[in-house]
Amino acid sequence: MQNDVYQKSLELHKLHHGKIETISKVRLNSGEVLALAYTPGVAEVSRQIASDPSLAREYTLKRNTVAIITDGSSILGLGNLGPFAAIPVMEGKAAIFKEFAGVDAFPICLDTQDTEEIIKVVKQIAPVFGGINLEDIAAPKCFEIESRLRKELSIPVMHDDQWGAATVILAGLINAMKLTNRSNDIKVVISGIGSAGVATARLLMAYGIKNILFCDSQGIIHHGRTELTDEKRELIEGSTADSFEGTIGDAVKGSDIFIGLSKPGLLTQDMVRTMSEKPIIFALANPVPEIMPDEAIAAGAAIVATGRSDFPNQLNNSLVFPGLFKGMFEANIPQFKIEMFSGVAQVLADLVKDLSSVKILPTMFESGVVTAVSRELQRYK
Amino acid sequence: MQNDVYQKSLELHKLHHGKIETISKVRLNSGEVLALAYTPGVAEVSRQIASDPSLAREYTLKRNTVAIITDGSSILGLGNLGPFAAIPVMEGKAAIFKEFAGVDAFPICLDTQDTEEIIKVVKQIAPVFGGINLEDIAAPKCFEIESRLRKELSIPVMHDDQWGAATVILAGLINAMKLTNRSNDIKVVISGIGSAGVATARLLMAYGIKNILFCDSQGIIHHGRTELTDEKRELIEGSTADSFEGTIGDAVKGSDIFIGLSKPGLLTQDMVRTMSEKPIIFALANPVPEIMPDEAIAAGAAIVATGRSDFPNQLNNSLVFPGLFKGMFEANIPQFKIEMFSGVAQVLADLVKDLSSVKILPTMFESGVVTAVSRELQRYK
Repeated sequence: MQNDVYQKSLELHKLHHGKIETISKVRLNSGEVLALAYTPGVAEVSRQIASDPSLAREYTLKRNTVAIITDGSSILGLGNLGPFAAIPVMEGKAAIFKEFAGVDAFPICLDTQDTEEIIKVVKQIAPVFGGINLEDIAAPKCFEIESRLRKELSIPVMHDDQWGAATVILAGLINAMKLTNRSNDIKVVISGIGSAGVATARLLMAYGIKNILFCDSQGIIHHGRTELTDEKRELIEGSTADSFEGTIGDAVKGSDIFIGLSKPGLLTQDMVRTMSEKPIIFALANPVPEIMPDEAIAAGAAIVATGRSDFPNQLNNSLVFPGLFKGMFEANIPQFKIEMFSGVAQVLADLVKDLSSVKILPTMFESGVVTAVSRELQRYK
Repeated sequence: MQNDVYQKSLELHKLHHGKIETISKVRLNSGEVLALAYTPGVAEVSRQIASDPSLAREYTLKRNTVAIITDGSSILGLGNLGPFAAIPVMEGKAAIFKEFAGVDAFPICLDTQDTEEIIKVVKQIAPVFGGINLEDIAAPKCFEIESRLRKELSIPVMHDDQWGAATVILAGLINAMKLTNRSNDIKVVISGIGSAGVATARLLMAYGIKNILFCDSQGIIHHGRTELTDEKRELIEGSTADSFEGTIGDAVKGSDIFIGLSKPGLLTQDMVRTMSEKPIIFALANPVPEIMPDEAIAAGAAIVATGRSDFPNQLNNSLVFPGLFKGMFEANIPQFKIEMFSGVAQVLADLVKDLSSVKILPTMFESGVVTAVSRELQRYK
C-alpha cells in the first residue's frame, strides 16, 4: 500500500516535472498590453514604488506571495537530506497554499545550513515577498532563525513546523478536553522537544495549560540536567509541574494527555493504563505513531489522534498555514504573535459541529476552514 | 500619450496586484491526490533526489524555472532605485517568459548591492532554479557577477542586459549589412560602454566584426587614457581599429554603423552626414534615442533602429531571452557560451522573409520566433 503511494507519487512528479508553475495574470497578446505590463509603462510603477516602497503591496505580487524557505536540514521525518531533496516537499506546500487559500507561494531551498547565513540570505531576498514560511529547519537553530527574522524583517515570519503543528494540536486538544470534561488544569506530557514540541509547549502555556512534563531522548527534562538547551530550560521554568528524574514511563503515570512528537512505538499499552481515566493520546510521530490507535483504545484511551490520514483525527498543519497567511495578508498584519495561534486554534475547534471522539477537528477539505482561519486574523489588525 | 501609458499601467498593476501568480499543476481535491503530491508520497521523491540530485530536474520545477535576479542598481533607464522599485519590472519579465515561451520564472529582488554578497546569495538560492537571468545590475559589477556565477554554478547564468541586447543588435546588424551590401570589415562605432555596450562589442568581435571604435562619456576610448576599466581595455585591445583621442563626432567620421547605447540626442544630423554613404544607425537609448529616426533618415541614413515600439525596427531583447532559456532547458545545456548568442542572432536574422529597411527583424508576436531560437540551442548539446 505504502509502496504503491510512493510509486504513484514518483509517476505524478515525473509526468508534470514538479507541481507548480508561474503564470501571467495578464495575456500579453499585443504591443499595447505589453507597453502597460512591461516597458515603457512599468517605469512609472517603478518610480512610484521608489518614492514609497509600501506601494509594492498595491502594485506587485508582494501583496499575496509567501516564500517557503528551507535548508533541507530536517525534511519530513527523513532527516538532513539537503536542499535538492527538499524541493518536492516545498513545492507541494506551495501547491497547497494556492489550491486551498489562493495564496501564491514559491519554494526557496538554501545551499547553506549555517544559522547566520540563513538569516542573512532570507533578509536579502525578502523584498519581493509578503511573508516568510520557514520549513523543515532543524531544532534548535530554527528558534534563533525565526526569532531574529521576526525582529529584523517587517513582514510576517513563521516556522510552520513549530506554529502550524502547535496550533492544530491545541485545536484538537480544546475539543478533546471538551469531550472528556477536562479543563486547563489537566496534566500533560509532551514527548519530543524539537521544533513542534517547543512551540506546542509555549502555545499551551500561553493558552493557560501549564501543568506539563517534558520528555526527550534522555527521559524527563528536569532541573538537575546540565546539558539543557535554552528552550528546554525555559519550558521547565514556565511549567507548574514538578519535574523529576525519570523515564517517559514515569512521566505519563497519572497524566491526562500524552502528546508525542518523538518516535514510533515509544508509548506502550502498559504505560497508557497508568494514565488517568480515559486519557487523551496524540501520537504524532510520522509515519509510524508512538502507539497505534487500536492499541491505545484497547488500553483505555478515550481519544486518539495521529498525523496520518488513514486513521480518525488526523492532526495536520495544512488546516492552519494556508488560512493563516491569507489572513495576515488580508489584514496587512506586520508580524505574528502567539495569541493569533491560540485564536486560530479556538476557531478550528469551534468549526466542528458533529464533535465526537473520532472527529475532533474538521478536515482541510471541509468548506469554510480557510475562511474561518483567515477571518480570525482580522481581530489582530 | 506617454502619460496615458503610465496612468493605464498603474491601473493595470493595481487591479491585479502585480502580474504573476504561482499555481498548482495538480488539482488537490482529494486526500488521495494530496497523498501523492505531498506527504506521505513525496517522501519517496525526496529520497530519490537525495541519492541523485540530478533527479531534481525530472521530478521538480527546477527543470523549467528561471530566477530573474536584480539588485535594483540600474532599473530600465531610471538608475539605482533599489529592490522594491525593481519588482514590477522583474515581474513583467517573468510574465513574458511564461507567455511567450512557457518558461516559469520568478523575480528575486535583492536587498544588497555588494558584488560578493550578490554572488553568494545567488549561489545559496540556486538549488530550486534551472537557470539564472541577471537583470538591471549596474556595470561594471555585472561582469564580475556573471563571470563568477558561470564558473561557480552548474546551471546557465546570463545577464540579459548584456547578452539579450547584444544578440538582438547582432541579429539586426546582420540583416542591415545584407540590405546595404556590407560585410564584416565594416567600420563600427559603439557609443556607451555599459553592460550592453561591452557585451555587444564582445559578440560582434566573436562574430568577426572587429573594426570598432568605442566611445564613453569622455569621448573615444584610447590607449592613452589611464582610468580605463578592465573591460574597456580588453575591448580596444581586441579591436582592429586604431583608437585615438577625440570626440564622438571624430569617431563617427567615415564609419558605416553607429550603435548607440548612451544618451538622448547625442548624435546630430551633421555627424550622420560625415559617416560613410548610406550609414546604419542603431539609436538605442531609451526612451529617447541618440537621434530621432526621421532626422537620421533626412541626414542620409539607410536603416535606423531604436529600442521603441512606436518606430520601425525595434531592437528588443524580448526576441531573445524567452526562447534562449527554453532552448537551454530543453537541450539541458549546463552553461551559456558566446557562440550560442551569435547562432541565435543568425537564426533571428534568417527568420525575416519580407526583409526591408523598415523590417530588419521579426517582432516577438510573430509565430515561430521562440521555437526557432530554442531549436538553435540543440546544436550546442
